[in-house]
Amino acid sequence: MSDYEDTIFDKIIAGEIPCQKVYEDEHVFAFLDIGPLSRGHTLLLPKERKRHLHELSDEAAAAVGRTLPRLCRAIMKASGAEAYNVLVNTGAPAGQVVMHVHIHIIPKLPDTGFKMGWHAGKLDDDQARKLIADIQAALDE
Amino acid sequence: MSDYEDTIFDKIIAGEIPCQKVYEDEHVFAFLDIGPLSRGHTLLLPKERKRHLHELSDEAAAAVGRTLPRLCRAIMKASGAEAYNVLVNTGAPAGQVVMHVHIHIIPKLPDTGFKMGWHAGKLDDDQARKLIADIQAALDE
Repeated sequence: MSDYEDTIFDKIIAGEIPCQKVYEDEHVFAFLDIGPLSRGHTLLLPKERKRHLHELSDEAAAAVGRTLPRLCRAIMKASGAEAYNVLVNTGAPAGQVVMHVHIHIIPKLPDTGFKMGWHAGKLDDDQARKLIADIQAALDE
Repeated sequence: MSDYEDTIFDKIIAGEIPCQKVYEDEHVFAFLDIGPLSRGHTLLLPKERKRHLHELSDEAAAAVGRTLPRLCRAIMKASGAEAYNVLVNTGAPAGQVVMHVHIHIIPKLPDTGFKMGWHAGKLDDDQARKLIADIQAALDE
């Protein structure tokens, strides 16, 4: 995991690059995505300068969590959507382009919105137990 | 938005249906998805009984937010993934199947993980301003 380097989002938060700002407080900043998948497609960012979700401090993560439902309610009301997807892509292989944590809120509207491919496998019990032991060991570190 | 009705996740949280539990505290519960898109695919749930993300209380949402990065770190370490997608589907049209809020954490591994279709449009400035006014009005309610 490399260190944080300035991104276009820092310039947007600082007001050096214009954006269609939706919301801002001490911890977070939200604006409309310039390449929307649907009407109301919004990005919510922590102001904390971290590349990836798993690097966020507890405080920044809690602030993002607290803001997210409120913002989703408002976007649903304004866009008229009754469904939506929330997505965080972490790392280039997972589709992250700008290396500052950001959360996509994507209203699902007729013919527009987020398209998914869902190719579910099957959970193997023995493998699951081993994996959980590893996850819990990592949580305890 | 209809009222909450018991789901299979309530039975899982209560221990009435077995699961591969990863983590639990006062506010949240996490277990391996039984239909994983990749190794380590985990569901993180608030214990608060709400159908949809935008219905969560500030307290529950902050607790989920706080847990998410920690859990992602541990899942990455255990699965060996260096990238992942975090996804919340809200409402049946957006792919929500179980009507209790849940967050997918999906490691991106060679040949497995979450597949996306990304059909970006273009943000129209005038429409954006109108939409933002509507979102901000809804935030202030």
